[in-house]
Amino acid sequence: MAELRPRYPDKDMKLFVKSPHRPGSLGLLLSVIGETEALVGDITTHYIGNDHSFREITVAVYDQAHLDAVVEAVRSKTPVEVRDVHDIVFERHRGGKIHSKRNFDLASVEDMRQAYTPGVARVCRYIAAYPDKAGEYTNINNSVGIFTNGTRVLGLGDIGPRAAMPVMEGKAMIYDQFAGISATPILIDTKDPQEFIEIVTSIAPTFGGIHLEDICVPDCFVIEEELIKRLKQPVMHDDQHGTATVLLAAVLSALRNIGRQDDESLLFAQIGLGAAGFGIAKILIDYGFKVLGVDLSEDARRRLRSYGGGTASLDDAMERADVVIATTGVVGLIKPAMIRKGQIILALTNPIPEIFPHDALAAGAAYAADGQSVNNALAYPGLFKAALQLGSNSITPKMKIAAARAISDLAPDGELVPSPLHPEVHQRVVDSVTALFE
Amino acid sequence: MAELRPRYPDKDMKLFVKSPHRPGSLGLLLSVIGETEALVGDITTHYIGNDHSFREITVAVYDQAHLDAVVEAVRSKTPVEVRDVHDIVFERHRGGKIHSKRNFDLASVEDMRQAYTPGVARVCRYIAAYPDKAGEYTNINNSVGIFTNGTRVLGLGDIGPRAAMPVMEGKAMIYDQFAGISATPILIDTKDPQEFIEIVTSIAPTFGGIHLEDICVPDCFVIEEELIKRLKQPVMHDDQHGTATVLLAAVLSALRNIGRQDDESLLFAQIGLGAAGFGIAKILIDYGFKVLGVDLSEDARRRLRSYGGGTASLDDAMERADVVIATTGVVGLIKPAMIRKGQIILALTNPIPEIFPHDALAAGAAYAADGQSVNNALAYPGLFKAALQLGSNSITPKMKIAAARAISDLAPDGELVPSPLHPEVHQRVVDSVTALFE
Repeated sequence: MAELRPRYPDKDMKLFVKSPHRPGSLGLLLSVIGETEALVGDITTHYIGNDHSFREITVAVYDQAHLDAVVEAVRSKTPVEVRDVHDIVFERHRGGKIHSKRNFDLASVEDMRQAYTPGVARVCRYIAAYPDKAGEYTNINNSVGIFTNGTRVLGLGDIGPRAAMPVMEGKAMIYDQFAGISATPILIDTKDPQEFIEIVTSIAPTFGGIHLEDICVPDCFVIEEELIKRLKQPVMHDDQHGTATVLLAAVLSALRNIGRQDDESLLFAQIGLGAAGFGIAKILIDYGFKVLGVDLSEDARRRLRSYGGGTASLDDAMERADVVIATTGVVGLIKPAMIRKGQIILALTNPIPEIFPHDALAAGAAYAADGQSVNNALAYPGLFKAALQLGSNSITPKMKIAAARAISDLAPDGELVPSPLHPEVHQRVVDSVTALFE
Repeated sequence: MAELRPRYPDKDMKLFVKSPHRPGSLGLLLSVIGETEALVGDITTHYIGNDHSFREITVAVYDQAHLDAVVEAVRSKTPVEVRDVHDIVFERHRGGKIHSKRNFDLASVEDMRQAYTPGVARVCRYIAAYPDKAGEYTNINNSVGIFTNGTRVLGLGDIGPRAAMPVMEGKAMIYDQFAGISATPILIDTKDPQEFIEIVTSIAPTFGGIHLEDICVPDCFVIEEELIKRLKQPVMHDDQHGTATVLLAAVLSALRNIGRQDDESLLFAQIGLGAAGFGIAKILIDYGFKVLGVDLSEDARRRLRSYGGGTASLDDAMERADVVIATTGVVGLIKPAMIRKGQIILALTNPIPEIFPHDALAAGAAYAADGQSVNNALAYPGLFKAALQLGSNSITPKMKIAAARAISDLAPDGELVPSPLHPEVHQRVVDSVTALFE
C-alpha cells in the first residue's frame, strides 16, 4: 500500500519565476508543475521585459520534499528560472493576525477629555454605582476571551500556549469578521485544571463570553463544567460543542441527501470519545438519536453512559450502526470490510481520515464524507453572538441544535455544510438561536 | 471662603436647541450661557427652516446643578428652546472604545486556509520547535496587557475592576493611536496581591509587555517588584513610572523656564508618597536631585529612605525646598503662607490642586502649575514601544529619563509639556530611549 496522504496538497507556497516572454512558456511551466502532482493557484505578473517576464505563482504541495521536487522539475524541464520561494502561510502570519484597535480617533483635546481624563471618571463612577451598566459603556458585552493552555492544539498535541497562539488569533479574526465580536486570545501557562479554572474565574469580568480552546482530555471536561457553574457568562469549549454543532448540521444534511431526514430509528456509532467525539455524541443524544460510543478508555465510555449513550466495540458498532462518525485521529482505522451496505460514513480525522470517502462508497456506503468541509468556524461566531445579544448565561443544547439546523439549511445540494464564507450563514445562526427566545 | 471648584468646568454636555433664525439670536444665547460660567465648545447647525434653526451646542459645566442652571437661564432669558441635553462622554463610551480587529480580511477559501486550518498548523509547529519565533509570527511582541483590579482608579478609590474598564479602554486607545501597540485590558477580580501576581504570571505569555494600572498602595509596589523579578517582559506600573516620567519632563521644563536647568544643588520636596509621589521621588533621585519626602505613613517614608531619599514634616519641607511637588489628593493643603519666595510649586492633585497656581504666584512662587497638563499619556506609549522594539526585559530609570528629556524638549515656550496629541512626541520618546542602546 502506498503511503497515505491527504486527498489534496495543502501547503501553499509562492514561486517567484523569471520566464521567457513567449507564447507557450507559461503552459509548459504549469504542465511540468502539474506532473509533480502539485496544484496551481493564483498567478500574478509583476514585470514584463523585452525577453522575460517575472511572475508569482501559488503552488500547493504536500511537504518540503514535494516542493523540492517541483523546483527541480522546473529547473530541469523548462527554461524558467525559479528566483525565490516563499511560504505564503508564514508571510500571512508575520506580526500577527489581530490588533486591538480604537473605535474612534482621538483627534482633538476634546476627544481626549471625553475618552480619557477627565470625562472617563464619570463613566467609571456610573458603572461603580450601576454595575449592570458595565456592558453598555464598555466593550465587555461584545467580547469573548479565547482561553487555552495549548495542551491539545489541532492534531499537534501538547505544544504549549505560545505555539497555540496562531490558532487563537485565527479564531479571533473569524469572530471579528463573521460576528463583529471583539475576541481576545488568553494564553494560560499551566497544565493544572484547577489553576486554569481559578485564573479564568479571576479575569472573567473582562469578557462577555468565555471560549475554551485546544485543552486536553479529560481536563477540558472538568474545566468547562466547573466554569459553567461558577460564571455568569456563557462558557463553551469549542472543540466539543462548536465541532458537534457543525457535525450535527452535516448529519442532518447527509440524512436529507439520502431521504432519511425524519427517521428517528437511526442508530449512530460515535467512534472516538475525545473532546470532539464526546461533544458529537452528546448533541446527537440531545437531538433524540440513539448513540453507541466506541473508545479504548473506560473513563470515556463511562462519561458517555452517564449522558445516556450506549457503548460497544468497534466491530460491534460498525455492524449495528446506520450512521458512523469517526473522530479518532487514527488514519485508516476503518477498513472497507467493516462497512455495511447502506451506511452513512463520516470519517472526520484531518488531514487523512479513518477511511477515504471513495473507499467507503466502493465498499457499499450510501453516503460518505471526510472532515475537509466540517469547519467549526461555522458555528461558534453565531452561537456566541446570539448568546451575547440575548444576555444568556449559557449556550444550551437547544441553542446548538437551532444553530445546526440553520447551518444545514444553507448547505449546497449534495454537500454537508456551506462555506464559513457564505454571506448569510452566521447571521442565520444568530437568528435561529435568538428565535428560540421570542 | 467660597467652595473650591476646578479652575474650569470639565463636564461636556450637548444641548440640542431650536432657535429663531434671525441675526443676534445665537449671540444672545451664548451670552446667556456665558453668564452662568459655563464654557461653550463646538456649535453645529443641523437644520435651517423658514423661521427656526436647529443646532447642537457643546457646553462644559461643573456639575448637574450647573447644567440645570444653564438650561433654566436659556429658558427664562432667551427665545431659544432646549429640546434635548446629551452627555457626550456617555455617548462616546456606548459599546466600548476598543475592538480586537483582524489585520486582513478572510475574503477567499485561500485566505481561510492560510490564516486558519490547515495552514496555521505549520506556524504552530514551527513556534513549538523555535519558541523564540513566537513574537515574529503572532501579535505577541507588539502587544501590551493592561492589568488592573480597580482598587485605586483615578481619584475614585476602590471601585472594582469592571468600573475601571473605561480607563483601561482609554489607555488601550492611546496605545493604538500613538504607538501602534495592540493593548488589551485585563480585569482581575482579586484584592490579594499574591493572587494578582500568580494570575499575571500565568497569562503573561500572551503579551509582549505588562502594564499595571490603578492598583492601590502598597499592593502596587509588591506586585510590580515581584513581576519584574519573575517575568521576561518589561513590566511597568504606569501610575508610578508613567506619571513620574511626565513629571520629570515638567520639572525640567520649569527649571528651563526660570533659567536653573543645570542647578544640581536644588532641593526637592515630594509631598505625598503614594504610587505617583513615590514614583516621582524615585525618578528625581535617579536623575541626581536631592529629595525630601513628606507623608503621614511611616511605611511610605521608610520606602523612600531605602531608595536614598530624606524625609521631613510638611512645614519643614516647605521651608527648605527649592521645588515643591504635591500629589496628596488633599485639596488646598498648601496655604499661601507656606510658600517661600522664589520656590517652584507643582501642585498636581486633579481636578482641584493643593494650591491654585495664581495663589502660589501671588504668595511669591517663581513658577507654579497644577496637574491639568501633566498627562501620563505622554510617556507610556513611547516607553513600551521602545522596550518592545528593543526586546528589552525592563523599563529602566535611564529609559524613563531619556523619555522625560524628549517630552520636555517639545514643550511649547512657557509650558511644562506638549500635548499628547503632538504629532512627534511619541516617536521622539521612542527614538530617545532606543538611542541609549545604539
